[in-house]
Amino acid sequence: MTERDVCELLETKQYKRIKESFAEMNQVDLAELLEELPERQMIMAFRLIGKEEAAETFSCMESREQQILVEALTERELRAVLDDMFLDDTADLLEEMPANVVERILANTDLETRRQLNQLLSYPEDSVGSIMTVEYVDLKPHMTVKASLEKIRRVGIDSETIYTCYVIQNKKLLGIVTAKALLISDERKSVQEIMESNIITINTHDDQETAAKLVRKYGLIALPVVDREGCMVGIVTVDDAMEVMQDEVTEDIALMAAVAPSEDSYFSTSVFRHAGNRIPWLLILMLSATLTGMIITKYEMAFEAIPVLVSFIPMLMDTSGNCGSQSSALIIRGMAIDDIRLKDALRVIWKEIRVAALVSSTLAVVNGVRIYIMYQQNLKLAALIGMTLICTVTLAELIGCSLPMLAKRCKLDPALMAAPLITTFVDAAAITIYFSIATALFNV
Amino acid sequence: MTERDVCELLETKQYKRIKESFAEMNQVDLAELLEELPERQMIMAFRLIGKEEAAETFSCMESREQQILVEALTERELRAVLDDMFLDDTADLLEEMPANVVERILANTDLETRRQLNQLLSYPEDSVGSIMTVEYVDLKPHMTVKASLEKIRRVGIDSETIYTCYVIQNKKLLGIVTAKALLISDERKSVQEIMESNIITINTHDDQETAAKLVRKYGLIALPVVDREGCMVGIVTVDDAMEVMQDEVTEDIALMAAVAPSEDSYFSTSVFRHAGNRIPWLLILMLSATLTGMIITKYEMAFEAIPVLVSFIPMLMDTSGNCGSQSSALIIRGMAIDDIRLKDALRVIWKEIRVAALVSSTLAVVNGVRIYIMYQQNLKLAALIGMTLICTVTLAELIGCSLPMLAKRCKLDPALMAAPLITTFVDAAAITIYFSIATALFNV
Repeated sequence: MTERDVCELLETKQYKRIKESFAEMNQVDLAELLEELPERQMIMAFRLIGKEEAAETFSCMESREQQILVEALTERELRAVLDDMFLDDTADLLEEMPANVVERILANTDLETRRQLNQLLSYPEDSVGSIMTVEYVDLKPHMTVKASLEKIRRVGIDSETIYTCYVIQNKKLLGIVTAKALLISDERKSVQEIMESNIITINTHDDQETAAKLVRKYGLIALPVVDREGCMVGIVTVDDAMEVMQDEVTEDIALMAAVAPSEDSYFSTSVFRHAGNRIPWLLILMLSATLTGMIITKYEMAFEAIPVLVSFIPMLMDTSGNCGSQSSALIIRGMAIDDIRLKDALRVIWKEIRVAALVSSTLAVVNGVRIYIMYQQNLKLAALIGMTLICTVTLAELIGCSLPMLAKRCKLDPALMAAPLITTFVDAAAITIYFSIATALFNV
Repeated sequence: MTERDVCELLETKQYKRIKESFAEMNQVDLAELLEELPERQMIMAFRLIGKEEAAETFSCMESREQQILVEALTERELRAVLDDMFLDDTADLLEEMPANVVERILANTDLETRRQLNQLLSYPEDSVGSIMTVEYVDLKPHMTVKASLEKIRRVGIDSETIYTCYVIQNKKLLGIVTAKALLISDERKSVQEIMESNIITINTHDDQETAAKLVRKYGLIALPVVDREGCMVGIVTVDDAMEVMQDEVTEDIALMAAVAPSEDSYFSTSVFRHAGNRIPWLLILMLSATLTGMIITKYEMAFEAIPVLVSFIPMLMDTSGNCGSQSSALIIRGMAIDDIRLKDALRVIWKEIRVAALVSSTLAVVNGVRIYIMYQQNLKLAALIGMTLICTVTLAELIGCSLPMLAKRCKLDPALMAAPLITTFVDAAAITIYFSIATALFNV
């Protein structure tokens, strides 16, 4: 069903048909469909979603559309939606909404929920607490398997949240029991007999990226979250972990291109925000690039005597810049997936030195030969370019691999030390090396 | 327990203690620990892992260590490990091993398993078939909930594979039933009464990345895989989907830095392989950069007359290059997460044009003023740099956003159209624009 179909059916008041086809749709697709509708139609269409699907669909929508709906819905409708929503989704919703909308939402939640929401909202951004789900199945150590299965039947909320149950005594997490374990064990056994007691947990204040990595590394469906006192407070489900993984990568790629990362999607970010995200780094890099320019002026006599020297500047700058960004990109990514650790720093540098030796000599030979042929056997020129390439490429790869590690060492995001910044450093170096060799060779 | 502890305990033959502490460890950590041991110790230690954990631990190890073990184990030990391994893991193992090792492994698997393995190995690399799990719980539509739960108890292999059961009739997938649905429904109901019949599936020959995206988008724990005839053949589990997500991103980041992506980790890739992955693109880019050089030579008189012109080349090249890579990075990532689609091409271009207007004018003004002050009120020079920046930056952002979309349109990987290639294009353009404005302004 396309947005056009929906509009037509709405025009012709064929609400029953809309209801039917909505009922067959997956909530994720339904949310996307609604977002494509004009405001009025979207609100009408949303009211035609079955009670069971409404909350889930609402959770899948973009905050802009969510706000429109919250403002359009009646108290009763709004409460119905909020009651069926997961608390972490409601918390995310509150973070996005303007004050007046937040008030309306809170006014429609009971006291206990409000308390939990405030708790969730109090966790720092990007912390585990800010992404965790507070709904999970907790069991007592002495419960029988039979009793536990009955409890799941009663409280079981949603797949991710029932497939691992948590054995808790005075708020402390003793162990986990998978739904599988419950299914295959003797009904009379007690939970503590079958529970897995060596468990991976994470703290509410840890970085959400750490949680995502643990979920990935150990192939978990849910990761239990404990607070500073070691009390179980929630879980991070695998689907949220995947979202975090994706967002963190998007942020890294933006940083690596010298763009201030933005939470919103490309289109939902305004032109001014886009410009604002790009200009600061461009200015810094532009001004530092003028340094390279000043170095060049120092060698004015050199290229006034031999103008052809100027024509090699772009090739030298680009090549060394590319080498630098190649190694920085590999190191940054390697560190992001814990493939490279800070203690490996020396191994990395030694490896890059050997790679640089191979790369630089290859480029030097190819280019040397090319120049020797193209510039009537000008051996000196060929030698100059060759030698410059060997020095600059080697230097570039060293800078490219060390800066990201240095950044991490200084608790900065290594992704900052990518192509743009590296290139600026490397250019200045390349130009200096180039002209000092040139002046020496051609004694100008 | 550190690798040193293990070595000591092995020396002093305290096998019981090793066994005990291994039993308490998570297989993922155990695998990492073994990998850090010297060969002899690793083999000894592996033999001390409990039968239940051995296969899982083996699956978590790097192929280099797996090969050492396969060659060291006796037929009986090897068969024991292989029997407990998931077929998709065994298939991955076979892909990595040399022929003689493959023979040994196949010799130790029964005919049926061999048939399934060959099937798995026949799927193209990066296809869904190559990452799917063939173990899953299939139910018949008329089975009761009770019978289904019993079947899970009997065949249930591993968490991911039991939480969603597949209702199948003559090999066709009719619907899915979650373990949750089974747990909360009346035992006498039939499976088809409670099954979810509008399901998301994927084809064996689709790209593994598509599977990962579906798992993420719909928050699935497992995604059913059907062959060309629409028969159910396997599932993609969420943990495998996360691996795919991670590998695809690593590949993109490498491509974006003009490095041929490699399957192996940074350290397990040899120096020669590293060089081999980097040199080809460097050569291409280096030679195309000489084009920019040739353009410069065309304007020799210009900078012979006004040498200071040369000193702005690096700043202009870097700035326009950075702008180009900023927009290309955003577009490449946007398309990777389906945030930007090809049909949005014009919207993107229009957005980038407006961003470019803001960015370029800001940079132009800042730089113009700087030059006006630093070069004794040389208005002409300030104007030249300002105008050049406006043209080149705008052009750069347009090239930066269109090339990735063009690549996708041509079924190429958009990640190829990132900083390095964009910069090369943009440099040539920037230099041309710069000198043509210069010659016009200063009529040299």
